[in-house]
Amino acid sequence: MVRKRSILEGYNSLKIAVKKGLYNEANTEIIGKIYLECIRMLDSLKQLALISKVEAKRYFAFDNGKKISRAINNDLYEPNYSKWQLLSSSIKNGDIGDITREDLSKILYTMAISFCACIDLLKDGDQQTPGTFFQYFISYFFTWRAGVEPQKSIPILNIDEEDTKLPTDFIFNLGIKKRKFHLPIKTSSRERSIMLWAHQKLLDGVYGIERFMGTPVLLAETKTDKKTREVVEICLPDQWRVYQLYIAKLKRIYYLDLPTPYSNLSQEFPPLIVKPFADFFFEWEELIPD
Amino acid sequence: MVRKRSILEGYNSLKIAVKKGLYNEANTEIIGKIYLECIRMLDSLKQLALISKVEAKRYFAFDNGKKISRAINNDLYEPNYSKWQLLSSSIKNGDIGDITREDLSKILYTMAISFCACIDLLKDGDQQTPGTFFQYFISYFFTWRAGVEPQKSIPILNIDEEDTKLPTDFIFNLGIKKRKFHLPIKTSSRERSIMLWAHQKLLDGVYGIERFMGTPVLLAETKTDKKTREVVEICLPDQWRVYQLYIAKLKRIYYLDLPTPYSNLSQEFPPLIVKPFADFFFEWEELIPD
Repeated sequence: MVRKRSILEGYNSLKIAVKKGLYNEANTEIIGKIYLECIRMLDSLKQLALISKVEAKRYFAFDNGKKISRAINNDLYEPNYSKWQLLSSSIKNGDIGDITREDLSKILYTMAISFCACIDLLKDGDQQTPGTFFQYFISYFFTWRAGVEPQKSIPILNIDEEDTKLPTDFIFNLGIKKRKFHLPIKTSSRERSIMLWAHQKLLDGVYGIERFMGTPVLLAETKTDKKTREVVEICLPDQWRVYQLYIAKLKRIYYLDLPTPYSNLSQEFPPLIVKPFADFFFEWEELIPD
Repeated sequence: MVRKRSILEGYNSLKIAVKKGLYNEANTEIIGKIYLECIRMLDSLKQLALISKVEAKRYFAFDNGKKISRAINNDLYEPNYSKWQLLSSSIKNGDIGDITREDLSKILYTMAISFCACIDLLKDGDQQTPGTFFQYFISYFFTWRAGVEPQKSIPILNIDEEDTKLPTDFIFNLGIKKRKFHLPIKTSSRERSIMLWAHQKLLDGVYGIERFMGTPVLLAETKTDKKTREVVEICLPDQWRVYQLYIAKLKRIYYLDLPTPYSNLSQEFPPLIVKPFADFFFEWEELIPD
Protein backbone atom coordinates (compact mmCIF):
# COMPACT_ATOMS: atom_id res chain seq x y z
CA MET A 1 0.00 0.00 0.00
CA VAL A 2 2.82 2.37 0.94
CA ARG A 3 4.72 1.18 -2.12
CA LYS A 4 1.71 1.75 -4.35
CA ARG A 5 1.46 5.30 -3.05
CA SER A 6 5.11 6.06 -3.62
CA ILE A 7 5.08 4.69 -7.18
CA LEU A 8 2.03 6.75 -8.12
CA GLU A 9 3.39 9.78 -6.28
CA GLY A 10 6.65 9.41 -8.16
CA TYR A 11 4.74 9.26 -11.44
CA ASN A 12 2.71 12.33 -10.54
CA SER A 13 5.78 14.33 -9.62
CA LEU A 14 7.39 13.30 -12.91
CA LYS A 15 4.31 14.53 -14.77
CA ILE A 16 4.72 17.92 -13.11
CA ALA A 17 8.52 18.00 -13.44
CA VAL A 18 8.53 17.38 -17.22
CA LYS A 19 6.74 20.68 -17.72
CA LYS A 20 10.09 22.30 -16.92
CA GLY A 21 11.94 20.03 -19.32
CA LEU A 22 12.44 16.37 -20.15
CA TYR A 23 16.10 16.04 -19.23
CA ASN A 24 17.45 17.57 -16.05
CA GLU A 25 18.75 16.55 -12.65
CA ALA A 26 15.38 16.70 -10.96
CA ASN A 27 14.01 14.15 -13.44
CA THR A 28 17.06 11.92 -13.03
CA GLU A 29 16.24 11.86 -9.34
CA ILE A 30 12.54 11.10 -9.84
CA ILE A 31 13.07 8.43 -12.51
CA GLY A 32 15.60 6.69 -10.27
CA LYS A 33 13.26 6.80 -7.31
CA ILE A 34 10.38 5.35 -9.33
CA TYR A 35 12.65 2.57 -10.58
CA LEU A 36 13.76 1.68 -7.06
CA GLU A 37 10.18 1.53 -5.77
CA CYS A 38 9.06 -0.57 -8.71
CA ILE A 39 11.75 -3.21 -8.45
CA ARG A 40 11.23 -3.39 -4.71
CA MET A 41 7.53 -3.99 -5.20
CA LEU A 42 8.12 -6.58 -7.92
CA ASP A 43 10.85 -8.28 -5.93
CA SER A 44 8.26 -9.26 -3.32
CA LEU A 45 6.03 -10.94 -5.93
CA LYS A 46 5.93 -14.38 -7.49
CA GLN A 47 7.25 -14.79 -11.02
CA LEU A 48 4.91 -16.88 -13.14
CA ALA A 49 6.47 -18.59 -16.17
CA LEU A 50 4.50 -17.96 -19.35
CA ILE A 51 4.28 -20.20 -22.39
CA SER A 52 6.32 -18.35 -24.97
CA LYS A 53 5.23 -18.78 -28.58
CA VAL A 54 8.01 -16.42 -29.57
CA GLU A 55 11.03 -18.15 -30.98
CA ALA A 56 14.14 -17.98 -28.82
CA LYS A 57 12.56 -15.72 -26.21
CA ARG A 58 11.31 -16.63 -22.76
CA TYR A 59 8.72 -14.62 -20.86
CA PHE A 60 7.26 -14.49 -17.37
CA ALA A 61 4.69 -12.35 -15.57
CA PHE A 62 4.52 -10.99 -12.03
CA ASP A 63 1.66 -12.48 -10.06
CA ASN A 64 0.20 -10.71 -7.02
CA GLY A 65 -2.32 -13.47 -6.35
CA LYS A 66 -5.16 -11.51 -7.92
CA LYS A 67 -3.87 -10.84 -11.38
CA ILE A 68 -0.78 -10.99 -13.50
CA SER A 69 1.29 -8.30 -15.18
CA ARG A 70 2.13 -8.02 -18.86
CA ALA A 71 4.78 -10.39 -20.26
CA ILE A 72 8.38 -9.72 -19.29
CA ASN A 73 11.38 -10.93 -21.27
CA ASN A 74 13.51 -13.16 -19.02
CA ASP A 75 16.75 -12.33 -20.80
CA LEU A 76 16.29 -8.56 -20.66
CA TYR A 77 14.87 -8.18 -17.17
CA GLU A 78 17.64 -7.54 -14.69
CA PRO A 79 16.64 -5.33 -11.78
CA ASN A 80 19.80 -3.62 -10.62
CA TYR A 81 19.61 -0.14 -9.19
CA SER A 82 23.34 0.41 -9.13
CA LYS A 83 23.52 0.01 -12.90
CA TRP A 84 21.04 2.85 -13.27
CA GLN A 85 23.21 4.93 -10.93
CA LEU A 86 26.16 4.19 -13.17
CA LEU A 87 24.20 5.07 -16.33
CA SER A 88 22.76 8.29 -14.94
CA SER A 89 26.09 9.54 -13.67
CA SER A 90 27.74 8.59 -16.98
CA ILE A 91 25.29 10.48 -19.13
CA LYS A 92 25.57 13.43 -16.79
CA ASN A 93 29.21 13.48 -17.83
CA GLY A 94 28.17 13.50 -21.45
CA ASP A 95 28.57 9.89 -22.51
CA ILE A 96 27.53 6.38 -21.60
CA GLY A 97 31.06 5.46 -20.66
CA ASP A 98 31.98 1.78 -20.45
CA ILE A 99 28.43 0.46 -20.41
CA THR A 100 28.02 -2.21 -23.08
CA ARG A 101 25.19 -2.39 -25.58
CA GLU A 102 23.88 -5.52 -23.84
CA ASP A 103 23.94 -3.96 -20.40
CA LEU A 104 22.31 -0.81 -21.69
CA SER A 105 19.52 -2.86 -23.31
CA LYS A 106 18.85 -4.55 -20.00
CA ILE A 107 18.88 -1.35 -17.96
CA LEU A 108 16.50 0.46 -20.30
CA TYR A 109 14.15 -2.50 -20.68
CA THR A 110 14.03 -3.26 -16.97
CA MET A 111 13.29 0.36 -16.05
CA ALA A 112 10.48 0.68 -18.59
CA ILE A 113 8.85 -2.71 -18.09
CA SER A 114 9.02 -2.66 -14.30
CA PHE A 115 6.94 0.50 -14.14
CA CYS A 116 4.43 -0.92 -16.65
CA ALA A 117 4.19 -4.19 -14.70
CA CYS A 118 3.55 -2.33 -11.43
CA ILE A 119 0.74 -0.30 -13.00
CA ASP A 120 -0.75 -3.47 -14.51
CA LEU A 121 -1.02 -4.83 -10.97
CA LEU A 122 -1.90 -1.61 -9.14
CA LYS A 123 -4.59 -0.31 -11.49
CA ASP A 124 -7.37 -1.81 -13.58
CA GLY A 125 -7.05 -1.65 -17.34
CA ASP A 126 -4.96 1.53 -17.22
CA GLN A 127 -3.00 1.74 -20.48
CA GLN A 128 -2.51 5.48 -20.32
CA THR A 129 -0.22 5.68 -17.29
CA PRO A 130 2.35 3.17 -18.66
CA GLY A 131 2.13 4.87 -22.06
CA THR A 132 2.75 8.34 -20.69
CA PHE A 133 5.56 7.19 -18.42
CA PHE A 134 7.20 5.44 -21.35
CA GLN A 135 7.08 8.67 -23.36
CA TYR A 136 8.76 10.64 -20.58
CA PHE A 137 11.30 7.90 -20.04
CA ILE A 138 12.39 7.61 -23.68
CA SER A 139 12.32 11.35 -24.35
CA TYR A 140 14.47 11.86 -21.23
CA PHE A 141 17.30 10.01 -23.01
CA PHE A 142 16.60 11.48 -26.43
CA THR A 143 16.61 15.00 -24.99
CA TRP A 144 19.89 14.31 -23.25
CA ARG A 145 21.48 13.04 -26.46
CA ALA A 146 19.99 15.69 -28.76
CA GLY A 147 20.81 18.47 -26.34
CA VAL A 148 17.50 20.21 -27.04
CA GLU A 149 14.09 19.93 -25.47
CA PRO A 150 11.30 18.58 -27.69
CA GLN A 151 8.23 20.37 -28.97
CA LYS A 152 4.80 18.76 -29.14
CA SER A 153 3.36 20.79 -32.02
CA ILE A 154 4.49 22.52 -35.19
CA PRO A 155 3.16 25.52 -37.07
CA ILE A 156 1.63 24.85 -40.50
CA LEU A 157 2.46 27.17 -43.39
CA ASN A 158 -0.05 29.95 -43.20
CA ILE A 159 -1.26 31.49 -46.43
CA ASP A 160 -4.80 32.08 -45.26
CA GLU A 161 -6.06 34.02 -42.29
CA GLU A 162 -5.85 31.53 -39.52
CA ASP A 163 -2.91 30.18 -37.59
CA THR A 164 -2.82 26.40 -37.57
CA LYS A 165 -0.70 24.53 -35.07
CA LEU A 166 -0.53 20.82 -35.59
CA PRO A 167 -0.17 18.64 -32.49
CA THR A 168 2.59 16.10 -33.09
CA ASP A 169 4.56 13.39 -31.39
CA PHE A 170 7.89 14.55 -29.92
CA ILE A 171 9.79 16.82 -32.30
CA PHE A 172 13.48 17.55 -31.70
CA ASN A 173 14.86 20.47 -33.67
CA LEU A 174 18.65 20.60 -33.44
CA GLY A 175 18.73 24.12 -34.84
CA ILE A 176 18.56 26.13 -38.05
CA LYS A 177 19.64 24.06 -41.07
CA LYS A 178 20.27 21.16 -38.76
CA ARG A 179 18.68 17.76 -38.42
CA LYS A 180 15.17 17.51 -37.01
CA PHE A 181 13.76 14.36 -35.44
CA HIS A 182 10.22 13.10 -35.20
CA LEU A 183 9.67 10.61 -32.42
CA PRO A 184 6.42 8.73 -31.84
CA ILE A 185 6.88 6.87 -28.55
CA LYS A 186 4.47 4.00 -27.86
CA THR A 187 4.43 0.89 -25.69
CA SER A 188 3.26 -1.09 -28.75
CA SER A 189 2.05 -0.41 -32.28
CA ARG A 190 -0.26 -3.35 -33.03
CA GLU A 191 -2.97 -2.63 -35.58
CA ARG A 192 -2.23 1.09 -35.35
CA SER A 193 1.28 0.92 -36.81
CA ILE A 194 0.26 2.71 -40.01
CA MET A 195 0.01 5.88 -37.88
CA LEU A 196 3.81 5.94 -37.55
CA TRP A 197 4.13 6.35 -41.32
CA ALA A 198 1.13 8.65 -41.62
CA HIS A 199 2.67 11.18 -39.25
CA GLN A 200 5.93 11.02 -41.17
CA LYS A 201 4.04 11.58 -44.43
CA LEU A 202 2.35 14.60 -42.91
CA LEU A 203 5.67 16.16 -41.87
CA ASP A 204 7.12 15.34 -45.31
CA GLY A 205 4.17 17.15 -46.87
CA VAL A 206 4.30 20.20 -44.65
CA TYR A 207 8.09 20.66 -44.40
CA GLY A 208 9.60 18.70 -47.27
CA ILE A 209 10.54 15.08 -47.66
CA GLU A 210 12.70 13.72 -44.82
CA ARG A 211 13.41 17.14 -43.42
CA PHE A 212 12.20 15.50 -40.24
CA MET A 213 13.80 12.15 -39.61
CA GLY A 214 11.31 9.64 -38.25
CA THR A 215 12.71 7.45 -35.48
CA PRO A 216 9.81 5.93 -33.51
CA VAL A 217 10.60 4.13 -30.24
CA LEU A 218 8.48 1.21 -29.06
CA LEU A 219 8.59 -1.02 -26.01
CA ALA A 220 7.44 -4.43 -27.30
CA GLU A 221 4.80 -6.21 -29.39
CA THR A 222 3.95 -9.03 -27.01
CA LYS A 223 0.42 -10.07 -26.21
CA THR A 224 -0.47 -12.43 -23.39
CA ASP A 225 -3.54 -14.60 -23.25
CA LYS A 226 -4.40 -14.44 -19.55
CA LYS A 227 -6.25 -17.76 -19.65
CA THR A 228 -3.82 -19.96 -21.55
CA ARG A 229 -0.79 -17.93 -20.40
CA GLU A 230 0.60 -17.97 -23.90
CA VAL A 231 2.69 -15.06 -25.15
CA VAL A 232 2.82 -14.12 -28.82
CA GLU A 233 4.41 -11.23 -30.71
CA ILE A 234 2.01 -9.46 -33.03
CA CYS A 235 4.05 -8.38 -36.04
CA LEU A 236 3.16 -7.34 -39.59
CA PRO A 237 6.50 -7.18 -41.43
CA ASP A 238 4.95 -7.43 -44.92
CA GLN A 239 2.61 -4.55 -44.20
CA TRP A 240 5.46 -2.50 -42.77
CA ARG A 241 7.40 -2.90 -45.99
CA VAL A 242 4.38 -1.70 -47.96
CA TYR A 243 4.07 1.34 -45.69
CA GLN A 244 7.76 2.09 -46.07
CA LEU A 245 7.38 1.90 -49.88
CA TYR A 246 4.13 3.75 -50.39
CA ILE A 247 3.54 6.14 -47.50
CA ALA A 248 6.81 7.58 -46.23
CA LYS A 249 10.31 6.59 -45.17
CA LEU A 250 11.14 6.06 -41.53
CA LYS A 251 14.84 6.24 -40.71
CA ARG A 252 14.79 3.91 -37.74
CA ILE A 253 12.34 2.06 -35.56
CA TYR A 254 13.76 1.34 -32.14
CA TYR A 255 12.47 -1.29 -29.71
CA LEU A 256 13.32 -2.07 -26.12
CA ASP A 257 12.31 -5.72 -26.73
CA LEU A 258 12.96 -6.10 -30.45
CA PRO A 259 10.55 -8.50 -32.22
CA THR A 260 12.55 -10.95 -34.35
CA PRO A 261 10.34 -10.66 -37.49
CA TYR A 262 11.19 -6.95 -37.64
CA SER A 263 14.91 -7.25 -37.07
CA ASN A 264 15.23 -8.98 -40.46
CA LEU A 265 13.59 -6.13 -42.38
CA SER A 266 16.86 -4.23 -42.76
CA GLN A 267 18.24 -7.06 -44.90
CA GLU A 268 15.59 -6.65 -47.60
CA PHE A 269 14.30 -3.97 -49.94
CA PRO A 270 12.93 -1.49 -49.04
CA PRO A 271 15.42 -1.07 -46.20
CA LEU A 272 13.67 -0.54 -42.91
CA ILE A 273 16.06 -0.52 -40.01
CA VAL A 274 14.44 -1.84 -36.86
CA LYS A 275 16.86 -2.28 -33.96
CA PRO A 276 17.29 -2.16 -30.18
CA PHE A 277 16.96 1.30 -28.66
CA ALA A 278 20.31 0.79 -26.95
CA ASP A 279 21.88 1.13 -30.42
CA PHE A 280 20.67 4.71 -30.56
CA PHE A 281 23.25 5.65 -27.91
CA PHE A 282 26.03 4.31 -30.11
CA GLU A 283 24.94 5.61 -33.51
CA TRP A 284 24.06 9.21 -32.78
CA GLU A 285 26.87 10.50 -35.03
CA GLU A 286 25.49 8.45 -37.92
CA LEU A 287 22.05 9.96 -37.48
CA ILE A 288 23.34 13.53 -37.68
CA PRO A 289 25.96 13.49 -40.43
CA ASP A 290 25.38 17.15 -41.27
CA MET B 1 -31.50 -13.45 -20.11
CA VAL B 2 -33.46 -14.98 -22.99
CA ARG B 3 -33.19 -11.65 -24.78
CA LYS B 4 -29.46 -11.51 -24.19
CA ARG B 5 -29.11 -14.94 -25.71
CA SER B 6 -31.12 -14.13 -28.80
CA ILE B 7 -29.21 -10.89 -29.45
CA LEU B 8 -25.85 -12.63 -29.19
CA GLU B 9 -27.11 -15.60 -31.18
CA GLY B 10 -28.35 -13.23 -33.85
CA TYR B 11 -24.93 -11.58 -33.96
CA ASN B 12 -23.19 -14.96 -34.21
CA SER B 13 -25.40 -16.11 -37.05
CA LEU B 14 -24.73 -12.81 -38.86
CA LYS B 15 -20.99 -13.41 -38.46
CA ILE B 16 -21.38 -16.78 -40.15
CA ALA B 17 -23.84 -15.55 -42.77
CA VAL B 18 -21.62 -12.72 -44.05
CA LYS B 19 -19.09 -15.29 -45.18
CA LYS B 20 -21.50 -16.03 -48.00
CA GLY B 21 -21.95 -12.35 -48.83
CA LEU B 22 -22.79 -9.02 -47.19
CA TYR B 23 -26.08 -8.33 -48.92
CA ASN B 24 -28.65 -11.08 -49.39
CA GLU B 25 -32.06 -12.11 -48.08
CA ALA B 26 -30.71 -14.24 -45.28
CA ASN B 27 -28.86 -11.23 -43.88
CA THR B 28 -31.92 -9.01 -44.25
CA GLU B 29 -33.72 -11.53 -42.09
CA ILE B 30 -30.99 -11.72 -39.44
CA ILE B 31 -30.41 -7.96 -39.25
CA GLY B 32 -34.14 -7.40 -38.80
CA LYS B 33 -34.34 -10.02 -36.09
CA ILE B 34 -31.41 -8.50 -34.19
CA TYR B 35 -33.00 -5.07 -34.45
CA LEU B 36 -36.31 -6.33 -33.07
CA GLU B 37 -34.63 -8.06 -30.12
CA CYS B 38 -32.53 -4.99 -29.34
CA ILE B 39 -35.37 -2.49 -29.30
CA ARG B 40 -37.46 -4.88 -27.22
CA MET B 41 -34.67 -5.17 -24.68
CA LEU B 42 -34.08 -1.43 -24.61
CA ASP B 43 -37.76 -0.67 -24.42
CA SER B 44 -37.87 -2.34 -21.01
CA LEU B 45 -35.11 -0.12 -19.64
CA LYS B 46 -34.99 3.32 -18.09
CA GLN B 47 -33.76 6.23 -20.22
CA LEU B 48 -31.35 8.40 -18.31
CA ALA B 49 -31.01 11.98 -19.53
CA LEU B 50 -27.38 12.99 -20.05
CA ILE B 51 -25.90 16.46 -19.82
CA SER B 52 -25.17 17.33 -23.42
CA LYS B 53 -22.22 19.63 -24.00
CA VAL B 54 -22.88 19.33 -27.72
CA GLU B 55 -24.62 22.33 -29.18
CA ALA B 56 -28.18 21.72 -30.34
CA LYS B 57 -28.08 17.99 -29.62
CA ARG B 58 -29.67 16.11 -26.73
CA TYR B 59 -28.47 12.73 -25.51
CA PHE B 60 -29.65 10.01 -23.14
CA ALA B 61 -28.36 6.60 -22.08
CA PHE B 62 -30.11 3.34 -21.29
CA ASP B 63 -29.76 2.34 -17.66
CA ASN B 64 -30.17 -1.25 -16.51
CA GLY B 65 -29.59 -0.40 -12.86
CA LYS B 66 -26.00 -1.62 -12.95
CA LYS B 67 -24.51 0.43 -15.72
CA ILE B 68 -25.41 2.77 -18.53
CA SER B 69 -25.04 2.47 -22.28
CA ARG B 70 -23.20 4.83 -24.60
CA ALA B 71 -24.86 8.18 -25.41
CA ILE B 72 -27.87 8.10 -27.72
CA ASN B 73 -29.05 11.07 -29.74
CA ASN B 74 -32.65 11.87 -28.74
CA ASP B 75 -33.58 13.30 -32.10
CA LEU B 76 -32.29 10.37 -34.12
CA TYR B 77 -33.41 7.49 -31.92
CA GLU B 78 -36.80 6.24 -33.04
CA PRO B 79 -37.33 2.52 -32.54
CA ASN B 80 -39.83 1.44 -35.14
CA TYR B 81 -39.62 -2.02 -36.59
CA SER B 82 -42.17 -1.40 -39.33
CA LYS B 83 -39.98 1.32 -40.82
CA TRP B 84 -37.18 -1.20 -41.18
CA GLN B 85 -39.63 -3.55 -42.88
CA LEU B 86 -40.49 -0.77 -45.29
CA LEU B 87 -36.83 0.03 -45.95
CA SER B 88 -35.77 -3.58 -46.46
CA SER B 89 -38.62 -4.34 -48.85
CA SER B 90 -37.94 -1.08 -50.72
CA ILE B 91 -34.26 -1.79 -51.28
CA LYS B 92 -35.14 -5.33 -52.31
CA ASN B 93 -37.05 -3.67 -55.13
CA GLY B 94 -33.98 -1.68 -56.05
CA ASP B 95 -34.60 1.72 -54.51
CA ILE B 96 -35.42 3.37 -51.20
CA GLY B 97 -38.81 4.45 -52.49
CA ASP B 98 -40.64 7.21 -50.66
CA ILE B 99 -38.52 7.14 -47.52
CA THR B 100 -37.28 10.64 -46.73
CA ARG B 101 -33.71 11.55 -45.87
CA GLU B 102 -34.78 12.34 -42.30
CA ASP B 103 -36.58 9.05 -41.83
CA LEU B 104 -33.70 7.13 -43.33
CA SER B 105 -31.26 8.85 -40.96
CA LYS B 106 -33.37 7.78 -38.02
CA ILE B 107 -33.82 4.18 -39.18
CA LEU B 108 -30.09 3.68 -39.80
CA TYR B 109 -29.01 5.40 -36.60
CA THR B 110 -31.53 3.56 -34.43
CA MET B 111 -30.57 0.17 -35.83
CA ALA B 112 -26.85 0.74 -35.34
CA ILE B 113 -26.97 2.41 -31.93
CA SER B 114 -29.53 0.02 -30.42
CA PHE B 115 -27.23 -2.95 -31.01
CA CYS B 116 -24.24 -1.04 -29.59
CA ALA B 117 -26.26 0.02 -26.53
CA CYS B 118 -27.36 -3.57 -25.88
CA ILE B 119 -23.79 -4.84 -26.03
CA ASP B 120 -22.65 -2.01 -23.73
CA LEU B 121 -25.11 -3.36 -21.16
CA LEU B 122 -24.75 -7.08 -21.84
CA LYS B 123 -20.97 -7.29 -21.95
CA ASP B 124 -18.07 -5.69 -20.13
CA GLY B 125 -15.85 -3.31 -22.07
CA ASP B 126 -16.51 -5.10 -25.36
CA GLN B 127 -15.74 -2.65 -28.16
CA GLN B 128 -15.12 -5.30 -30.77
CA THR B 129 -18.65 -6.71 -31.06
CA PRO B 130 -20.31 -3.32 -31.72
CA GLY B 131 -17.49 -2.43 -34.12
CA THR B 132 -17.83 -5.64 -36.11
CA PHE B 133 -21.62 -5.45 -36.21
CA PHE B 134 -21.39 -1.88 -37.43
CA GLN B 135 -19.10 -2.97 -40.27
CA TYR B 136 -21.53 -5.68 -41.38
CA PHE B 137 -24.46 -3.32 -41.05
CA ILE B 138 -22.98 -0.51 -43.17
CA SER B 139 -21.45 -2.80 -45.76
CA TYR B 140 -24.83 -4.53 -46.12
CA PHE B 141 -26.22 -1.27 -47.53
CA PHE B 142 -23.11 -0.36 -49.49
CA THR B 143 -23.04 -3.81 -51.10
CA TRP B 144 -26.70 -3.48 -52.01
CA ARG B 145 -26.12 -0.08 -53.62
CA ALA B 146 -22.85 -0.95 -55.35
CA GLY B 147 -24.19 -4.27 -56.57
CA VAL B 148 -20.89 -6.00 -55.84
CA GLU B 149 -19.55 -7.78 -52.79
CA PRO B 150 -16.52 -6.17 -51.11
CA GLN B 151 -12.99 -7.53 -50.81
CA LYS B 152 -10.91 -7.25 -47.67
CA SER B 153 -7.46 -7.30 -49.26
CA ILE B 154 -5.74 -6.23 -52.45
CA PRO B 155 -2.73 -7.59 -54.27
CA ILE B 156 0.36 -5.38 -54.34
CA LEU B 157 2.30 -4.95 -57.58
CA ASN B 158 4.75 -7.79 -57.62
CA ILE B 159 8.12 -7.20 -59.22
CA ASP B 160 10.07 -9.36 -56.81
CA GLU B 161 9.60 -13.00 -55.94
CA GLU B 162 6.96 -12.90 -53.32
CA ASP B 163 3.25 -12.34 -53.55
CA THR B 164 2.09 -9.60 -51.21
CA LYS B 165 -1.56 -9.23 -50.31
CA LEU B 166 -2.40 -6.15 -48.31
CA PRO B 167 -5.27 -6.45 -45.81
CA THR B 168 -7.55 -3.44 -46.25
CA ASP B 169 -10.83 -2.01 -45.11
CA PHE B 170 -13.80 -2.82 -47.34
CA ILE B 171 -12.98 -2.42 -51.02
CA PHE B 172 -15.78 -2.28 -53.60
CA ASN B 173 -14.67 -2.76 -57.18
CA LEU B 174 -17.48 -1.92 -59.60
CA GLY B 175 -15.64 -3.55 -62.48
CA ILE B 176 -12.88 -3.02 -65.02
CA LYS B 177 -12.29 0.68 -65.74
CA LYS B 178 -15.06 1.50 -63.30
CA ARG B 179 -15.09 3.26 -59.99
CA LYS B 180 -13.57 1.58 -56.95
CA PHE B 181 -14.46 2.46 -53.38
CA HIS B 182 -12.46 2.23 -50.21
CA LEU B 183 -14.57 2.10 -47.08
CA PRO B 184 -13.16 2.17 -43.56
CA ILE B 185 -16.15 1.57 -41.24
CA LYS B 186 -15.69 2.52 -37.59
CA THR B 187 -17.92 3.39 -34.66
CA SER B 188 -15.68 6.42 -33.99
CA SER B 189 -12.36 7.82 -35.16
CA ARG B 190 -11.07 9.75 -32.14
CA GLU B 191 -7.30 10.07 -31.95
CA ARG B 192 -6.91 7.45 -34.67
CA SER B 193 -8.53 9.48 -37.44
CA ILE B 194 -5.23 9.93 -39.31
CA MET B 195 -5.53 6.22 -40.22
CA LEU B 196 -8.43 7.04 -42.57
CA TRP B 197 -6.12 9.22 -44.66
CA ALA B 198 -3.14 6.90 -44.31
CA HIS B 199 -5.05 4.00 -45.87
CA GLN B 200 -6.18 6.26 -48.71
CA LYS B 201 -2.58 7.37 -49.26
CA LEU B 202 -1.50 3.76 -49.42
CA LEU B 203 -4.08 2.92 -52.11
CA ASP B 204 -3.13 6.10 -53.99
CA GLY B 205 0.48 4.95 -53.90
CA VAL B 206 -0.18 1.39 -54.98
CA TYR B 207 -2.90 1.96 -57.58
CA GLY B 208 -2.70 5.61 -58.58
CA ILE B 209 -4.14 8.76 -57.06
CA GLU B 210 -7.88 8.57 -56.35
CA ARG B 211 -8.32 5.40 -58.38
CA PHE B 212 -9.96 4.23 -55.17
CA MET B 213 -12.46 6.71 -53.81
CA GLY B 214 -12.28 6.95 -50.04
CA THR B 215 -15.65 7.19 -48.36
CA PRO B 216 -15.31 6.20 -44.68
CA VAL B 217 -18.48 5.66 -42.63
CA LEU B 218 -18.54 6.42 -38.92
CA LEU B 219 -21.21 6.14 -36.27
CA ALA B 220 -20.54 9.09 -33.92
CA GLU B 221 -17.83 10.95 -32.02
CA THR B 222 -19.54 11.22 -28.66
CA LYS B 223 -17.84 10.49 -25.38
CA THR B 224 -19.70 10.14 -22.12
CA ASP B 225 -18.23 10.77 -18.70
CA LYS B 226 -19.91 8.05 -16.65
CA LYS B 227 -19.47 10.00 -13.40
CA THR B 228 -20.63 13.47 -14.38
CA ARG B 229 -22.93 12.12 -17.13
CA GLU B 230 -21.69 14.76 -19.52
CA VAL B 231 -21.56 14.04 -23.24
CA VAL B 232 -19.02 15.73 -25.50
CA GLU B 233 -18.12 15.29 -29.16
CA ILE B 234 -14.41 14.80 -29.75
CA CYS B 235 -13.64 16.51 -33.04
CA LEU B 236 -10.42 17.76 -34.65
CA PRO B 237 -11.58 19.74 -37.71
CA ASP B 238 -8.30 21.68 -38.06
CA GLN B 239 -6.28 18.48 -38.07
CA TRP B 240 -8.64 16.89 -40.57
CA ARG B 241 -8.06 19.78 -42.95
CA VAL B 242 -4.33 19.31 -42.63
CA TYR B 243 -4.69 15.58 -43.35
CA GLN B 244 -6.85 16.33 -46.38
CA LEU B 245 -4.19 18.77 -47.66
CA TYR B 246 -1.02 16.82 -46.95
CA ILE B 247 -1.77 13.10 -46.83
CA ALA B 248 -4.52 12.20 -49.30
CA LYS B 249 -7.97 13.23 -50.46
CA LEU B 250 -11.06 11.55 -49.09
CA LYS B 251 -14.15 11.95 -51.22
CA ARG B 252 -16.70 11.75 -48.44
CA ILE B 253 -16.88 11.02 -44.76
CA TYR B 254 -20.30 9.75 -43.74
CA TYR B 255 -21.68 9.76 -40.20
CA LEU B 256 -24.82 8.30 -38.69
CA ASP B 257 -24.73 11.02 -36.00
CA LEU B 258 -22.91 13.84 -37.79
CA PRO B 259 -20.73 16.02 -35.51
CA THR B 260 -21.49 19.67 -36.15
CA PRO B 261 -17.82 20.84 -36.29
CA TYR B 262 -17.26 18.49 -39.24
CA SER B 263 -20.37 19.41 -41.19
CA ASN B 264 -18.90 22.88 -41.77
CA LEU B 265 -15.69 21.60 -43.34
CA SER B 266 -17.23 21.38 -46.81
CA GLN B 267 -17.63 25.17 -46.83
CA GLU B 268 -13.91 25.83 -46.54
CA PHE B 269 -10.72 25.04 -48.41
CA PRO B 270 -9.62 22.26 -48.72
CA PRO B 271 -13.10 20.89 -49.36
CA LEU B 272 -13.84 17.91 -47.16
CA ILE B 273 -17.40 16.75 -47.45
CA VAL B 274 -18.63 15.24 -44.20
CA LYS B 275 -22.34 14.39 -44.22
CA PRO B 276 -25.05 12.05 -42.94
CA PHE B 277 -24.81 8.50 -44.26
CA ALA B 278 -28.45 8.74 -45.35
CA ASP B 279 -27.24 11.13 -48.07
CA PHE B 280 -25.26 8.29 -49.62
CA PHE B 281 -28.53 6.67 -50.72
CA PHE B 282 -29.49 9.84 -52.60
CA GLU B 283 -26.15 10.72 -54.20
CA TRP B 284 -24.98 7.42 -55.61
CA GLU B 285 -25.17 8.70 -59.17
CA GLU B 286 -22.92 11.63 -58.25
CA LEU B 287 -20.32 9.28 -56.82
CA ILE B 288 -20.10 7.18 -59.98
CA PRO B 289 -20.21 9.68 -62.84
CA ASP B 290 -18.24 7.38 -65.11
